[in-house]
Amino acid sequence: VPLPGQLLAQLIDVVGATQVLTDPGQLASFTTDWSGRFVGHTDVVVRPSNSDEVGAVLDLCRGAGVALVPQGGNTGLVGGGVPMHGEAVLSLSRLGHFELDATAGQITVGAGVTIGAVQRAAAEAGWAYGVDLGSRDSATVGGTVSTNAGGLRVLRYGDTRAQLLGLEAVLGTGDVVRNVSGLRRDNTGYQLASLFCGAEGTLGFVTAACLRLVAPSPEQVVALVAFEGVIEAANAASLLRREAASLSAVEFFVSTGLELVCQVMGLAAPFAQSHPAYLLVEGQGQGDVVGELAGALQALAGVVDVAVATETPRRAELWRYREAHTEAINTLGAPHKLDVALPPERLGEFLRTVGATVTESAPEAKTWLFGHAGDGSVHVNLTGLAPDDEAADDAVLTLVAELGGSISAEHGIGTAKVGWLARTKAPGSLAAFATLKRAFDPDGVCNPHVLMPPA
Amino acid sequence: VPLPGQLLAQLIDVVGATQVLTDPGQLASFTTDWSGRFVGHTDVVVRPSNSDEVGAVLDLCRGAGVALVPQGGNTGLVGGGVPMHGEAVLSLSRLGHFELDATAGQITVGAGVTIGAVQRAAAEAGWAYGVDLGSRDSATVGGTVSTNAGGLRVLRYGDTRAQLLGLEAVLGTGDVVRNVSGLRRDNTGYQLASLFCGAEGTLGFVTAACLRLVAPSPEQVVALVAFEGVIEAANAASLLRREAASLSAVEFFVSTGLELVCQVMGLAAPFAQSHPAYLLVEGQGQGDVVGELAGALQALAGVVDVAVATETPRRAELWRYREAHTEAINTLGAPHKLDVALPPERLGEFLRTVGATVTESAPEAKTWLFGHAGDGSVHVNLTGLAPDDEAADDAVLTLVAELGGSISAEHGIGTAKVGWLARTKAPGSLAAFATLKRAFDPDGVCNPHVLMPPA
Repeated sequence: VPLPGQLLAQLIDVVGATQVLTDPGQLASFTTDWSGRFVGHTDVVVRPSNSDEVGAVLDLCRGAGVALVPQGGNTGLVGGGVPMHGEAVLSLSRLGHFELDATAGQITVGAGVTIGAVQRAAAEAGWAYGVDLGSRDSATVGGTVSTNAGGLRVLRYGDTRAQLLGLEAVLGTGDVVRNVSGLRRDNTGYQLASLFCGAEGTLGFVTAACLRLVAPSPEQVVALVAFEGVIEAANAASLLRREAASLSAVEFFVSTGLELVCQVMGLAAPFAQSHPAYLLVEGQGQGDVVGELAGALQALAGVVDVAVATETPRRAELWRYREAHTEAINTLGAPHKLDVALPPERLGEFLRTVGATVTESAPEAKTWLFGHAGDGSVHVNLTGLAPDDEAADDAVLTLVAELGGSISAEHGIGTAKVGWLARTKAPGSLAAFATLKRAFDPDGVCNPHVLMPPA
Repeated sequence: VPLPGQLLAQLIDVVGATQVLTDPGQLASFTTDWSGRFVGHTDVVVRPSNSDEVGAVLDLCRGAGVALVPQGGNTGLVGGGVPMHGEAVLSLSRLGHFELDATAGQITVGAGVTIGAVQRAAAEAGWAYGVDLGSRDSATVGGTVSTNAGGLRVLRYGDTRAQLLGLEAVLGTGDVVRNVSGLRRDNTGYQLASLFCGAEGTLGFVTAACLRLVAPSPEQVVALVAFEGVIEAANAASLLRREAASLSAVEFFVSTGLELVCQVMGLAAPFAQSHPAYLLVEGQGQGDVVGELAGALQALAGVVDVAVATETPRRAELWRYREAHTEAINTLGAPHKLDVALPPERLGEFLRTVGATVTESAPEAKTWLFGHAGDGSVHVNLTGLAPDDEAADDAVLTLVAELGGSISAEHGIGTAKVGWLARTKAPGSLAAFATLKRAFDPDGVCNPHVLMPPA
């Protein structure tokens, strides 16, 4: 579908000629996702600088019947921020408003500000931001709000929705919601911020957010705990969940992933021997976090080795074994990335059987397991598969559905999982989703191929 | 508007003759709210026993064009659960489903279960429920979810929305949303639970909820802190907000309220002398909560006296000075109850000036101030006013709007504050509210006079 002739000129009127990109060389970085798995195409990238311009661009595109895909740092993992069906790209990276309230402990920022920038500003003001993730220096506030990003400290501070004190968004109806007052208590009507958070740009576009900050954690401790099996590690993760108040992360990986990380990154192994499964357990706060972590670890069964670190460099070294998984696996080719969640009592069963399930449906595939086991969330990466070969994806998500889990713990649905949404959602929920989509995007121009099939 | 002739017979077919009340003597307790301020009227109260019956009742009423007001324990404070315009009453108190998962730390309960029952079941299983409020033995899960109830421990555990892992609701479209799997991580589509929580029954009716439980707090300490003025108390509340991780409540009251409580309840005064303002500060958890509380109090200015309690009976005595405010004020006649929130830097100014603002517009009114000052939330009770005399209400809410606050920190809008909603909501937000209402209650039968004026 070619762009209507006059639309380009109208878009240039709104954002200026330099912010309407049509040169194929300029478009490339906007059409391929970070992992390299999702490759789309577009005729135009529009880069507004504020919410008024976003509203004007949306109005023009609604009038012309041209669909938009919003894009922040392009670090999404489910093909939700690249134009897989030739949509125009709405790049929000220039929305850089920045306002920190050190007394109230909150920050109001434009959609284009990176998570790393929020973290650094918070630290300078004596606070911290509760969301952290590997892509912190590319991922933006707009993208993490739109996808309700989780990350490494959900166990302690909750997901992005839990940080959200208010937002500004331009809706598919043309209405602009602007509620960034940052009041901690405001029980007046429908909770729009929670609704547009995690909507993946399908109801409109988030242009700014007010985020709560949290008290910094002067005391920090990290333990790498080796287990005699994955079942023991899964059971330990469930047990540690009860201690969530004093723990900030309970991360999981297995021997094959650790070996790959050490080989690719040139790291020394953490223990003299290899072990079947590992938990990286972190405590942080203002009290006796070392004592609390030690107490929590004593209750665990099946522990075969432990390394503890309190000093910053050694803590970073232990974290590196976990954080480098993504980068190490990517050296094997663009993986299929599934992120699923299981009920705590089924987590061990899933970890024990998922590899065989994959091999059965795709013998050439290799399964990599890691993730945020403390809340039942697991990243399942599959390598050795063609981008379009979804037999193994289907087998994994079918297993998840059978075990009562979720097909996405944190990455969202995007375009990648649209076909599986009905597997774990009842018809009543899907009907309510369709009601919301029709109501807030009546013209079907807001990321129409994401979350649900286009109407 | 009389009920259509055949509707009663059809309702009896669904729920049985004993659960369709039409006798005026039986109706009375359903038409007047707990505070006595909101007195409505109805021809019928319907009492279904499960969500299928709720759906069938709603279908019949949609067909007949008969509006429904949902009611739980009838402890709401804004006229949102009584039939102020002759609506039929949908009493949900018989929905008593009860299922506690001690491993996962969560509970799935029907709308009619009381908060007190949830708290007791949680305690028996080694857990606690994070929401507590004075009306705990009447207020229900359905009502507290529908109104996003706050209460005494929001500072520590968040409001009801923060406890909500899933819900079951019958929507005004006839669709039934049923997602009570209780997964901690599930990022698949629009967050329906957060949307229907706090919607005050205007989009449909909550029939069950899955609620997270929290670790119990073996260590507890309460301090009653007297200040030389309300400004000092407000500043202290803002400072303590930074320490929220170790504190579970920061409650506010003033000398006149304390004196009334002591007189009505026959309690001894906490200190030899009366002081202008008080904070009740509570710490609870598993660590050194006494030490943490002491540390937090040392940083405060303007403190003139302190009473500390660690033993259960004495802690309850200190709490009583705060909790008995509602009951003591009610002995003066049904008060106008406003609950507002202020930005932390404006809280002191509000507390200092609101009394004069009330007197100016209603010289006969008396102003009572107390509340959850730790998050900027204040209950403003006005006595000596006729139920319909809203001049003083208007003056208070206007002051709140001028100071950038919220006209409801936790009670909601109900029918009482419909006229003031536009005072603090921008047109774009109100348009989004109307979009939601039209989409999910197309026939306008779900609590149509609550939150916004009927279309």
